[in-house]
Amino acid sequence: MNIKILIEYDGTRYSGWQRQINAVSIQQTVEEALEKITGEKIKITGSGRTDAGVHALGQVANFKIETRIPVEKLPYAINAQLPRDIVVKGATLADDDFHARFSAKSKTYEYKIYNSVHPSALLRNYSYWCSGRPDVTAMAEAGKLFLGVHDFSAFMASGSPVKTTVREIHKITIQKCHNIITLEVCAGGFLYNMMRIMAGTLLDVGLGNTDADEITQIILSKDRNRAGKTLPPQGLCLMKVEY
Amino acid sequence: MNIKILIEYDGTRYSGWQRQINAVSIQQTVEEALEKITGEKIKITGSGRTDAGVHALGQVANFKIETRIPVEKLPYAINAQLPRDIVVKGATLADDDFHARFSAKSKTYEYKIYNSVHPSALLRNYSYWCSGRPDVTAMAEAGKLFLGVHDFSAFMASGSPVKTTVREIHKITIQKCHNIITLEVCAGGFLYNMMRIMAGTLLDVGLGNTDADEITQIILSKDRNRAGKTLPPQGLCLMKVEY
Repeated sequence: MNIKILIEYDGTRYSGWQRQINAVSIQQTVEEALEKITGEKIKITGSGRTDAGVHALGQVANFKIETRIPVEKLPYAINAQLPRDIVVKGATLADDDFHARFSAKSKTYEYKIYNSVHPSALLRNYSYWCSGRPDVTAMAEAGKLFLGVHDFSAFMASGSPVKTTVREIHKITIQKCHNIITLEVCAGGFLYNMMRIMAGTLLDVGLGNTDADEITQIILSKDRNRAGKTLPPQGLCLMKVEY
Repeated sequence: MNIKILIEYDGTRYSGWQRQINAVSIQQTVEEALEKITGEKIKITGSGRTDAGVHALGQVANFKIETRIPVEKLPYAINAQLPRDIVVKGATLADDDFHARFSAKSKTYEYKIYNSVHPSALLRNYSYWCSGRPDVTAMAEAGKLFLGVHDFSAFMASGSPVKTTVREIHKITIQKCHNIITLEVCAGGFLYNMMRIMAGTLLDVGLGNTDADEITQIILSKDRNRAGKTLPPQGLCLMKVEY
């Protein structure tokens, strides 16, 4: 059976999604929970890696398993073996050829900026603190320039090994609610650190460090040095993966 | 100088507001930060105690201090000495007779219930998980019966030493947004565990365990055993204190 699961996690305590030596990852923690249930070593495939400190409300993974536990009861069985900061929110039987990474059509990420004179105690692990006064309307306008198909080399951590740096952004919104600025991006795929560099570049626009018009030039330059800084991981959350 | 400060904290790691032996409290942590700045032992007075695990977005405290640091710069100086889960968001010079507890006119608390089949990884420390299907409209209707001046003995942890168990509730709202049910109560004051027992009782109404009409009878009975259970601390947050 090929099982597709939906996972929420608080990435604060973890080294990221992917299994690593000498550090506890989300993947390893879920695999160990599955091993406790089935007695077998089971490898799970995530829709993509998330970095240390990055969260997920809607990560998707799949794995092959033979079990007598009905699929709809699997989340309860797995959650009973998981720490409280990782939760399986659903499980369904998928086609044999379903692959959480290769079958993904689009992903939606959110990046949260807490905008206030003083930092937030309650959101410290779930947002990036900015004490300046960014112009959110300017950020939203500039964000639209990312829409469509582009070579996003300038928005990728240098040295990342990928076949192509072309990606398509389907939707981008930037809104402020109370003290929180949320950047939401839905794209066919994301390059390594792309979302965090986009957030950093748009914040630069908001703070007047970068002209909104420059976004297009930065994209065309394919030069990582022209884009803004990589904002820290804790503001990032994988919201949804569509198939 | 009598200084009034506004404090946000994540209560997860703490034994509550009040200083205790063998456990780290919010009060002690702030007092130690003040001592590092001034070199003096300074006692701070909070608007009220919050229990272990209870959060605050708008706790207020005051203390007497002689310092050359301008009042508006005090939050920066204190925050530099505080752990990231406690933040001083503002400081003002108060009248000599201002007392964070005795001068308070009203307080607003929120209690959050995460309502979903599976628990939340991200909100595990900031909400109470209910997997049932509470009728939020019934809860909101029943909530109105708490409005006004009542003897809230039935909604107080038994054995709490207080002069009077009469309190006035000015405002109460219950709303559901996505998976989160938020109970907001503004009152002249709260008895020990009052908010958490009210939340438990209203959830019983939502789940059909208690009739909405019974609320008035429970209040009149002054019998703690007739009210619902005390919901756990992590769903509770002190939002605002008014003077």
